[in-house]
Amino acid sequence: MKKTEILKKWVITEIEQGGLTNGAKLPAQRILAEMFNINRSTVQQALSELAEQELVCAKAGAGVFVTNAAWEIVQQKTPNWPMYIQQSFHLPNKRVIQRINELEQQPQMTRLGTGELAPELLAHEAVSQALKMLTIPASSLGYSSPQGDVKLRQLLVERLKKKGIHVTVDEIMIVSGTLQALQLYAMALLKRGDYVQCAESSYLQSIETFQSFGIHLVQQDILRELNNVEALYAIPTLNNPTGTVWNLAQRQRVLAKCAAAKLPIIEDDVYGELLFHDTLPPLKAMDQANQIIYLNSFSKTVSPGLRIGWVVGPREVIARMSDVKMQTDYGSSAISQLIAYELLQNGAYDAHIKQLRQQLQYRAQQIVEFLQREFSTLSTWQTPHGGFYIWLRFKQPIVTEQLFEHLASEGILINPGFIYNPHNRHHIRVSYAYASIAQITVSLGKLKAIITH
Amino acid sequence: MKKTEILKKWVITEIEQGGLTNGAKLPAQRILAEMFNINRSTVQQALSELAEQELVCAKAGAGVFVTNAAWEIVQQKTPNWPMYIQQSFHLPNKRVIQRINELEQQPQMTRLGTGELAPELLAHEAVSQALKMLTIPASSLGYSSPQGDVKLRQLLVERLKKKGIHVTVDEIMIVSGTLQALQLYAMALLKRGDYVQCAESSYLQSIETFQSFGIHLVQQDILRELNNVEALYAIPTLNNPTGTVWNLAQRQRVLAKCAAAKLPIIEDDVYGELLFHDTLPPLKAMDQANQIIYLNSFSKTVSPGLRIGWVVGPREVIARMSDVKMQTDYGSSAISQLIAYELLQNGAYDAHIKQLRQQLQYRAQQIVEFLQREFSTLSTWQTPHGGFYIWLRFKQPIVTEQLFEHLASEGILINPGFIYNPHNRHHIRVSYAYASIAQITVSLGKLKAIITH
Repeated sequence: MKKTEILKKWVITEIEQGGLTNGAKLPAQRILAEMFNINRSTVQQALSELAEQELVCAKAGAGVFVTNAAWEIVQQKTPNWPMYIQQSFHLPNKRVIQRINELEQQPQMTRLGTGELAPELLAHEAVSQALKMLTIPASSLGYSSPQGDVKLRQLLVERLKKKGIHVTVDEIMIVSGTLQALQLYAMALLKRGDYVQCAESSYLQSIETFQSFGIHLVQQDILRELNNVEALYAIPTLNNPTGTVWNLAQRQRVLAKCAAAKLPIIEDDVYGELLFHDTLPPLKAMDQANQIIYLNSFSKTVSPGLRIGWVVGPREVIARMSDVKMQTDYGSSAISQLIAYELLQNGAYDAHIKQLRQQLQYRAQQIVEFLQREFSTLSTWQTPHGGFYIWLRFKQPIVTEQLFEHLASEGILINPGFIYNPHNRHHIRVSYAYASIAQITVSLGKLKAIITH
Repeated sequence: MKKTEILKKWVITEIEQGGLTNGAKLPAQRILAEMFNINRSTVQQALSELAEQELVCAKAGAGVFVTNAAWEIVQQKTPNWPMYIQQSFHLPNKRVIQRINELEQQPQMTRLGTGELAPELLAHEAVSQALKMLTIPASSLGYSSPQGDVKLRQLLVERLKKKGIHVTVDEIMIVSGTLQALQLYAMALLKRGDYVQCAESSYLQSIETFQSFGIHLVQQDILRELNNVEALYAIPTLNNPTGTVWNLAQRQRVLAKCAAAKLPIIEDDVYGELLFHDTLPPLKAMDQANQIIYLNSFSKTVSPGLRIGWVVGPREVIARMSDVKMQTDYGSSAISQLIAYELLQNGAYDAHIKQLRQQLQYRAQQIVEFLQREFSTLSTWQTPHGGFYIWLRFKQPIVTEQLFEHLASEGILINPGFIYNPHNRHHIRVSYAYASIAQITVSLGKLKAIITH
């Protein structure tokens, strides 16, 4: 130990243990030097370091005294948490997203853009019923196999066939929603410095899942240009936030382009069952080159609270992602997996989806009619083909953080376009899935009043 | 496009579309040069590049022919998945751990070291009962608040008081088990290059959760020396794998040391309720400096399949870890959280734990008696104070990968000491929680026969 440290440690210990109380006078420098067998300059150095920590102060001519706050300062042993947080690995949520999460907790807020089914649209009855019917095998309550419940995977194999996706149980894994699937993809198949292409306006930009791992996003419509990247992230059916649906020819074109480039495609199909009219095959159904990692979940159809999704891909990719998942959380909730199985197996899921589609379509029509009456001169939009969203484009670049905060202060929470593309100042994502028609139209009315004042 | 590429592309397209079938002869070099208006050397260069791809081959004097595998090679458009896997972010599980996961799927294997309750020890009856009693509020089926179900957190606040831990609901978050808590800690509070100290034999070494984020482990008993690290990971009650319990004086000493160093402590208390006799306060109950992140879960007491754990820590740390969790999986299963609440609230949890402790103690006694009869000359061990494990030390350094594989081929799966410390060749972790007494004693008998042959 350095000689100054010996004296400093003695002073601090004395303060701590009450030998030197707040305001007490220290022994003279000469005596301190004798006590520790150190020279006077070392004593002075130690005292000046203690003074910097505000533990002692010298009073001219009177000597050196313990400060009045010394005992409290010595007691402060809390680690420097802000520093740990600031320097750590994962990016925080974007400021606006954190703000949205915060405002969503306020019950009086009208959530105009929320990507979630309203409580009355969730499969509440079906889940409650399934719960009552469930018998839990004791084995299910243990740790899961790496890929998740095999009965659920077998059932998914059968259901995927109807979509034209022909796979075996070891080409499927169960995850806790597609967000987790994206994180697993980043950890299991990408490296720092990689580039991933996604749509010009993309859900992927609104989360920091890839970016935290040092992966860069290239936002450019794949139909226009395929960049030199390590993967493509796409929502071919009902893109979030734009609602865009690729037609069959576009799907084939994308697939051919990516096949030629041997490019992995992450196909996010969470809105795939919510098309109002036609059905379209997922890219995965046309995947000759084993290049597609297909993601789906119950979160946009049954209940996000279940936290159940699935990933379909080449055997070796599924094995790798399962290994990483086992190192992340030892698998998804067994009970949630049993409920998912029950709902798919007893027909409740299919009945629910059929009804949900109609309810969403009705809501969409109501909002479109309102927009036609009230927003035709201000903005443009596409009539939704399904899903939750209308991607409302204002002719003027008015969608700023100021507008966001102004609306929040009026009790209206929007999802501004710039969370999906940092340069966007024209769009908001209107969701007809969460707030009631009345809430949405009233809020849009207020919004109109504010921007046209 | 380079001139060679024009010719190559033509050849590949012709192969692909059947204009040039496998085994077909290419036009003469002179004709190819004329067709594409390129010179002979460019033609030769392009043909040699095509030959490297095994699409064509030259036969001396006869010309250049499409190979017999050409069409199949052209069709191969699968991305290079092995390369993506190999270069990616997360470390794979240790080879032995992967092997253990694999062997655990074989039903005839006796699992001598498994850190899991046997199906008959799980709270199967209580969980089944809770499920039948449950009413699910529709709001629970939506996305969770960042820290998890508030009713469950309120109940945990009350229960933690009995352990001497006094916190509020915003100092608790719900996670999907403590493994996830460790990953969140790494992502939310540590950075690449950081050091974390853990016990000489530690569970933390058997997983790659920290290491994947570039964090180094320092394995040294904190009671002997505190290193200059960014965090300490400890299981003060019933360390995994050694079963060690810190007494009260040791707890106070560790806390004082860490407080002086302002060092964050990750206290893993998953075995805390499984002491056979005395109870001991968690470090967190004595945490004056707000330096402890306390982890607990249902996985070792009720059911790992629920995937429910909780983290207790300073408000700012919980806010940070919750934000990262929301970016990882949007929260844990709502149904699992409701079941956890029900079990804690209706008394089933307490009744189960009381019974479980007795069952584990009975099993431990049986195995210790067997060891006394059969292993006294070969090895040493401590009588367990609780939990799942006996840390069996062989006098000779016999615990090698060869022994592991030899035993596996005999249907016996061990957890060798070297997964908890790479230098360990002396220990195996015997778990009396999973296999039956009969299976354990028969397997240990075989093990003895093998090592004494």
